[in-house]
Amino acid sequence: MSELRQEPITGNWVIIATERNKRPSDFPARHEERKGGACPFCKGNEKLTPPEITAYREAGTHPDEPGWWIRVVPNKFPALDNKSADLAGSELPGTLWVDSKHACTSEIRHNFYTSMNGTGAHEVIVESPEHDQSLEQHNPAQIQEIFRTWRDRHRALMARAPIRYVQIFKNVGAIAGASLEHPHSQVIATPLIPTVIENELAGARSFFVDRGTCPYCEMIAHEEAVGDRLIAGNQQFIAFCPYASRFPFEITILPRRHLADFSGLDDSMLQDLSAIVKVTMQKMTTSLSRPPYNLTLHTAPAGFTEAPYYHWHLEILPRLTIVAGFEWGTGIYINPTPPETAARYLRETAI
Amino acid sequence: MSELRQEPITGNWVIIATERNKRPSDFPARHEERKGGACPFCKGNEKLTPPEITAYREAGTHPDEPGWWIRVVPNKFPALDNKSADLAGSELPGTLWVDSKHACTSEIRHNFYTSMNGTGAHEVIVESPEHDQSLEQHNPAQIQEIFRTWRDRHRALMARAPIRYVQIFKNVGAIAGASLEHPHSQVIATPLIPTVIENELAGARSFFVDRGTCPYCEMIAHEEAVGDRLIAGNQQFIAFCPYASRFPFEITILPRRHLADFSGLDDSMLQDLSAIVKVTMQKMTTSLSRPPYNLTLHTAPAGFTEAPYYHWHLEILPRLTIVAGFEWGTGIYINPTPPETAARYLRETAI
Repeated sequence: MSELRQEPITGNWVIIATERNKRPSDFPARHEERKGGACPFCKGNEKLTPPEITAYREAGTHPDEPGWWIRVVPNKFPALDNKSADLAGSELPGTLWVDSKHACTSEIRHNFYTSMNGTGAHEVIVESPEHDQSLEQHNPAQIQEIFRTWRDRHRALMARAPIRYVQIFKNVGAIAGASLEHPHSQVIATPLIPTVIENELAGARSFFVDRGTCPYCEMIAHEEAVGDRLIAGNQQFIAFCPYASRFPFEITILPRRHLADFSGLDDSMLQDLSAIVKVTMQKMTTSLSRPPYNLTLHTAPAGFTEAPYYHWHLEILPRLTIVAGFEWGTGIYINPTPPETAARYLRETAI
Repeated sequence: MSELRQEPITGNWVIIATERNKRPSDFPARHEERKGGACPFCKGNEKLTPPEITAYREAGTHPDEPGWWIRVVPNKFPALDNKSADLAGSELPGTLWVDSKHACTSEIRHNFYTSMNGTGAHEVIVESPEHDQSLEQHNPAQIQEIFRTWRDRHRALMARAPIRYVQIFKNVGAIAGASLEHPHSQVIATPLIPTVIENELAGARSFFVDRGTCPYCEMIAHEEAVGDRLIAGNQQFIAFCPYASRFPFEITILPRRHLADFSGLDDSMLQDLSAIVKVTMQKMTTSLSRPPYNLTLHTAPAGFTEAPYYHWHLEILPRLTIVAGFEWGTGIYINPTPPETAARYLRETAI
């Protein structure tokens, strides 16, 4: 079972994925699947994955058989999972205690360090039976089905103790961390609120206390007034290159309506979300010749779903630059393409 | 001139390196120098760099000519530099103001976003006239000279307004961001305290308030008591795989003596620092077959050099895994090699 460990000074958490237990000779392994091998996510190869958790499939077809258009399966090498815990630690004797805030997750406080069981979930959403169909190439109806699945898995996992956050994301291209080429998203449910989200919540709350408004609502108004970082928009969403983009061609997609919790996505929003993702991603992949990228959902953790200062949003991070010593040492990213320049290229890219 | 921009919600800063102004067709550029081209850092090619800032060189030899064993030059494409500023902004009208905290750095507060001139410095320390001699292969005297140069540049730049922090780091290997193969370190001086360092200071201060001790001093005592994450030690330094390692084979090197500011490094410490870096890096490069890595210095910013709760330290980050969507979305790193396993391999690696 994996273990969550907290860095004692900054409070940042890491997942020690003990089941992988990689040795020096196991690195590097940076390749996508062998082209010759059977793809476990393709139609007809359903037996190559663990049994499916759920699927959108044609009436009359059976689990783990063809007939599906979206399929959700457990990750074969879960970073976090819901197995029962073995809490034997290697540290000096500490106190084992159950923290009511963390429900049934046990947290161990050693005399110096803190750790927690790696309880959670790690699922894969196979976005299509077709191997070569990337997100933006689908018809709008299929993209809606993908985000509907995101929402449904989000709702299902957030309802489960001790889950406090559900991270949904996509890695595309080996450089961006994809180990399989077949289009898929991943879902990792964590028993704690991740640092990135906690920082957003804390900053947004502080803005709200100072000015009485949600900073994301303000950002939408400001971006529309300025205009030079806008990429696309429709009735319910806006896509732009953020003012402090860490990466060249970084993109944020925000719902116009104030909504902290992604689970609140309704059918009319699904339609507009799918439309703006399709157009934005088409522009991005055309302009940059199908770059590797990461796409991540940011949404409210348990307890913050009604926060008046938070908006769920999507971040699209093309992986064109390398994160190196300066970034690791400082947290300051060096971006060689001003977001105004990136947005202009994306706006002007015909699709 | 570069521009520092602040993300309005988290407060994180980025550097928009406008002089690079990369277009879509400029990506990807992930290669080290062309093997055929002349290396600007090799002995005899001194004219290929901007004029040197300083050098350790034989008596009677002249700047920008051979005879040096360490040479410091300006970065040709500085992320930050000390040119005078042109503050024309693309935002809606804002207030231009000079903040006394930031000395002569002007900060612009727009009606929504905040930015600052990219004032600072960006230097390259060429660690040897030889192209193929990596850090751990040098004799101990040369390694001392390298860290002496780090210290001297740190002292020189910290004395300059509006500098508040000096980040020294090394990128080795194209995957780790090195654009030139010839062994070198880089120095970037910033007009603000970087987030990573501010988070360490805040966490360490809070630990000190709670318990009355420096958390780094406590960590040294704890690691020595437990022992299973230790790699090497000498009279003045300790090297270990940190408890919450984000990366496989991540290494921290800490001075045993409580010292917040790297500038305080004296000659006896230089000797022990050079010895522990040599042995630790030899073990790391042998065990992992010369992996790409980043090495970063963490030290006290201006105003915190006497902090009773902070220790300067080195972090060595082998780049064997890929930072992907989950890490960007959450800040939680998935590490497939427990630090106890990594440390055992490193301890047992004969050099």
